[in-house]
Amino acid sequence: MRIMVQKFGGSSVKDADRIKAVARRVINAKEEGWHVVVVVSAMGDTTDELIAKAKQITARPPRREMDMLLATGEQVSIALVAMAIDSLGYPVVSLTGAQAGIVTDNVHTKARIQQVGAERVRKELNDGRIVIVAGFQGINAENDITTLGRGGSDTTAVALAAALSAEVCEIYTDVDGVYTADPRIVPDARRLDDISYSEMLEMASLGAVVLQPRAVEYAAMHGVRIYVRNSYNNNRGTYVQEERVMEKDMVVVGVAHDTNTAKISITGVPDKPGVAYRLFSRMAAENINVDMIVQTTKADGLADIAFTTSRDDAQKACEIVENVKNELNAESVRLNETVAKISIVGAGMVTNPGVAARMFEALAEENINIHIISTSEIKVSCLIDEDRIKDAVRAVHAKFGLVAATA
Amino acid sequence: MRIMVQKFGGSSVKDADRIKAVARRVINAKEEGWHVVVVVSAMGDTTDELIAKAKQITARPPRREMDMLLATGEQVSIALVAMAIDSLGYPVVSLTGAQAGIVTDNVHTKARIQQVGAERVRKELNDGRIVIVAGFQGINAENDITTLGRGGSDTTAVALAAALSAEVCEIYTDVDGVYTADPRIVPDARRLDDISYSEMLEMASLGAVVLQPRAVEYAAMHGVRIYVRNSYNNNRGTYVQEERVMEKDMVVVGVAHDTNTAKISITGVPDKPGVAYRLFSRMAAENINVDMIVQTTKADGLADIAFTTSRDDAQKACEIVENVKNELNAESVRLNETVAKISIVGAGMVTNPGVAARMFEALAEENINIHIISTSEIKVSCLIDEDRIKDAVRAVHAKFGLVAATA
Repeated sequence: MRIMVQKFGGSSVKDADRIKAVARRVINAKEEGWHVVVVVSAMGDTTDELIAKAKQITARPPRREMDMLLATGEQVSIALVAMAIDSLGYPVVSLTGAQAGIVTDNVHTKARIQQVGAERVRKELNDGRIVIVAGFQGINAENDITTLGRGGSDTTAVALAAALSAEVCEIYTDVDGVYTADPRIVPDARRLDDISYSEMLEMASLGAVVLQPRAVEYAAMHGVRIYVRNSYNNNRGTYVQEERVMEKDMVVVGVAHDTNTAKISITGVPDKPGVAYRLFSRMAAENINVDMIVQTTKADGLADIAFTTSRDDAQKACEIVENVKNELNAESVRLNETVAKISIVGAGMVTNPGVAARMFEALAEENINIHIISTSEIKVSCLIDEDRIKDAVRAVHAKFGLVAATA
Repeated sequence: MRIMVQKFGGSSVKDADRIKAVARRVINAKEEGWHVVVVVSAMGDTTDELIAKAKQITARPPRREMDMLLATGEQVSIALVAMAIDSLGYPVVSLTGAQAGIVTDNVHTKARIQQVGAERVRKELNDGRIVIVAGFQGINAENDITTLGRGGSDTTAVALAAALSAEVCEIYTDVDGVYTADPRIVPDARRLDDISYSEMLEMASLGAVVLQPRAVEYAAMHGVRIYVRNSYNNNRGTYVQEERVMEKDMVVVGVAHDTNTAKISITGVPDKPGVAYRLFSRMAAENINVDMIVQTTKADGLADIAFTTSRDDAQKACEIVENVKNELNAESVRLNETVAKISIVGAGMVTNPGVAARMFEALAEENINIHIISTSEIKVSCLIDEDRIKDAVRAVHAKFGLVAATA
């Protein structure tokens, strides 16, 4: 059984016309002989509208009830997509996350998939039906509805592809694939034919929002081949898979940036063991993702710590840091919400010295100040002022020669 | 454990303010020492909006997918009501129909409850929580979501009350209770303190839309005491229960009317056995409820049959009748969608001769023509032209002396 998973995001199902277009695309794959499983997100701005409804009731809705509320968004989408396919004469069935056997842990609003018992999906495929599955949602051991957090539909698609041993997991979006930089900022950015899981993971984590990082991680772990495509056309897309065909001299594959980031600093902390543990274990307990971290020690036996979180988590992170400040008699806590992160990514970087230096050079030439630097084997990130991010992306993109060849 | 079930319809949860009012009312009952189970409908016009979404995709959405779609309406409501109660500091949990153990048959969009396995509800009550259940929905043996049809939330509430042996099932609506006639048409109509199940059943079937007939039937079968109340005030309401305290000389308790009705006639049918069976078994197979039926035989060995259905079903019923016409070589089929039904109801009617005659007298005095008459032990119904329905209700209401006593 040759199985294909196709995932369509919110903009691909935002109205009746787009839903009908999705139906035709799904049917094309079916006509080509595929068994098709379709994962869909909530229509357009539905999730934001539901969140607004909750906020009208209370500023602090319980997370379990948020999941009960938000899960309706995808349920509406799957029903409508199934109707569209049925109206074109093809057998189809829609399934909620629970019905599709997406079992998660108990962390409401940010649940992780633990197991995919896709029996019902397999049975429906065997019966010749196209199967439409609600993305973003699952069920925990208590039979309560959970959601996977923003972008979770990608993870649903990849997890189903893994469980069903699908040949490919097509992720439809509103761009042609993965680019060397955001084409809205760098008009001559180039679409990549291939990218490796680890490179994609860095790109995704770093704000190139084509794919959810968790989905890429899951795909790498289970060897799921992802094909990122444009739902508005039939252009070639980008394959995300293990063996990237390394393009000539392409040390850096892309420049990513992320403006959903905030910097929190605490100064004058006693420089002794356990301080970082105290701070960041509490962040973890509150499910706050911390990104860049730097610690510097000063001559007076005191240290400064700075780190970044998403802006959604910044207030909560600040409260935690304030508590730690009081416990440790530290000097001060500061929050800066007008920063942004720029990163270069490339698996070839590890064997090429001087790549980071070229990035810093590009930023210096533009007179852009760097707050924090963070590096891994395949990426270099710099935190800078938000109002310079576009200049930074263009300059770095040009410095590494990523521009598209002119026709 | 003293359990109260409270049911709130769509207008009672139509916006954030009304939802907060519901939360306060629920908490009042909790403070009085009740274990409270709350059943809610979809907010305001949500169900109509969802139907409109489906119609944009296809004129004939599969019923299974309609249920998948429509069930989201109540799911949004339960999450928001739970959030409102939580924000006031009371432990609460929302449950979908499936989670609450509402098991139905397979008739999508018009499913009937077969079983209520309220284990989870009982467990949550025992843990001290207020339990919010999605009305109108259930799950069938295949684990597919079903809905109970319009007004199905009443049935959910009564079925839960029966399964939990609740002392009372309060049904909140936007009027003070059950009236002797629709107060919008008859301003001096009177609220009844009590009404029996069978009387309420007739009133409900006949278009007094305070309670869904199926819910009243279920309540009668399981002896569930219903209290119909106004969600906007604390006025006395109407009890629906077995032993009605018969009011002095009150042979007729109310006048009901129904404008959602259509008349279909087939003329010149061979007058032989099996014709009615052929016609109405097909209606049943298509889940079309047929209400009044009359058959008249003419001298030429031919018969005319006329019957009524709801206007939603009229087109489909007509198609069936057309097929039967062709099979039997009957003369003609006619559809009249501008009719309405007026009915008088009262358990005392069976022992009081001449009640029907007084109704016909009232209609004759108003010069109102009667299309079809239908009677049962506790009701008399007449089908008339829709444009005379208000005159008819007022005249019959006055004829039976149902007007409220002036203070």
